[in-house]
Amino acid sequence: MKKANKKLNAAIIIIGNEILSGRTQDVNVLNISNWLNGLGVKLEEVRVIPDVEKTIVKTVNQIRKKFTYIFTTGGIGPTHDDITSKSISKAFKVKYCYHPKAYQILENYYEKGKFNIGRKKMAKTPKNASLIYNPSSAAPGFFVKNVYCLPGVPSILKSMLGGLNSRIIGGSKLLSKTLSLRTVESEISIPLEKVQKKYKNLEIGSYPFFKKGKVSVSLVMRSRKSKLIEKCTKDILKFLNKKNIKIINKK
Amino acid sequence: MKKANKKLNAAIIIIGNEILSGRTQDVNVLNISNWLNGLGVKLEEVRVIPDVEKTIVKTVNQIRKKFTYIFTTGGIGPTHDDITSKSISKAFKVKYCYHPKAYQILENYYEKGKFNIGRKKMAKTPKNASLIYNPSSAAPGFFVKNVYCLPGVPSILKSMLGGLNSRIIGGSKLLSKTLSLRTVESEISIPLEKVQKKYKNLEIGSYPFFKKGKVSVSLVMRSRKSKLIEKCTKDILKFLNKKNIKIINKK
Repeated sequence: MKKANKKLNAAIIIIGNEILSGRTQDVNVLNISNWLNGLGVKLEEVRVIPDVEKTIVKTVNQIRKKFTYIFTTGGIGPTHDDITSKSISKAFKVKYCYHPKAYQILENYYEKGKFNIGRKKMAKTPKNASLIYNPSSAAPGFFVKNVYCLPGVPSILKSMLGGLNSRIIGGSKLLSKTLSLRTVESEISIPLEKVQKKYKNLEIGSYPFFKKGKVSVSLVMRSRKSKLIEKCTKDILKFLNKKNIKIINKK
Repeated sequence: MKKANKKLNAAIIIIGNEILSGRTQDVNVLNISNWLNGLGVKLEEVRVIPDVEKTIVKTVNQIRKKFTYIFTTGGIGPTHDDITSKSISKAFKVKYCYHPKAYQILENYYEKGKFNIGRKKMAKTPKNASLIYNPSSAAPGFFVKNVYCLPGVPSILKSMLGGLNSRIIGGSKLLSKTLSLRTVESEISIPLEKVQKKYKNLEIGSYPFFKKGKVSVSLVMRSRKSKLIEKCTKDILKFLNKKNIKIINKK
């Protein structure tokens, strides 16, 4: 991974009727986001859109200039509803055609005589796209400029991320620390806001949850600077002590 | 639920750094989507955005005219990172102030002397917003025109949807049927595409999955018309029979 100093951010476009219809629980956002954290790239937007060409083209072109990296998931398989490659070609106004290397990979992968039209479709990309290799099931992803197209099946997607590490120019790792408390948010909201105001380069999130029937709260500090997280933790512990609030977990 | 004939659609805006950071797995999309299916409203877009006022304002104003209903989740609690009410007020250019009824509900809910500033914040909404009652933890959601603001905690959100049924003007229920097959997508992509082309008011999705180490495929038909689903099922069964492909599940 190379390093950059400028602000590095990313967006994900989930292309999938199955997520919108409530049939399938997306888990790719969580996986990609955690992978990006390690590379120091901050995920700043996600869009879930249907398998509709003009929507894909419009969405990609609307956001690819706003973010350092765009990742799409889904729609690169062999069936009629897999229209990501074709749509990305349209978005970049380039030809949608066989990628020689992808064709070769897939031809080698299938038994002789089994490389049918459906399978050949998976060798089509926007002209001159670069491939993202797929160690699970051969059919590659691809990228054009800053738009990286990955499959929708979570296990396959995950297996392809590692191969992308060297392509992503990363930044300082995004660090986080969580304090879980036996309290309710409204008991701590005022002092917590005061602490947040002290730290510009650190975000504090407050998330209520239920544990053994009791309401609890996780405070999550997030920053690229570990010293800021340490200082902020001290400030939070100070007011928690004063209020006699029990910490049930630190990590 | 009232009925309407026009095209009814919806979008969800997930307001939450915790989803973008990969800390929390969103499940609200799945829950809201399935609830909307029952009401005959089609979820057509989801955006996940950070807890940043100008992003919330811009996103809400960008999409509220494109969809019949907008649902936001998250950011209506008592802490500094809960800025949905204030941001929606800005989006609609109305005052952000105490809602008399919400104030009363919360004042009654808390013990005397415990209705502190943090809790009072949860009684603030855009001026003249309508409330969405909360049977779990009192603090209400609200709506302004077609923008419905719900909490982020999934169990609380779910408990509030029922109360909204009478507010949503619904359409014909969105029906679906799934055929799960022991095959790979590329074996069926050509005849499947032919079938899809026959049906304009029915979507067929094809989703590969792994079961006991074997690749399988689910074909999902989706339409507001049950007759179309029946006809389409027959067409699919015809080519599956010809190809001798085993159906492992129908539902």
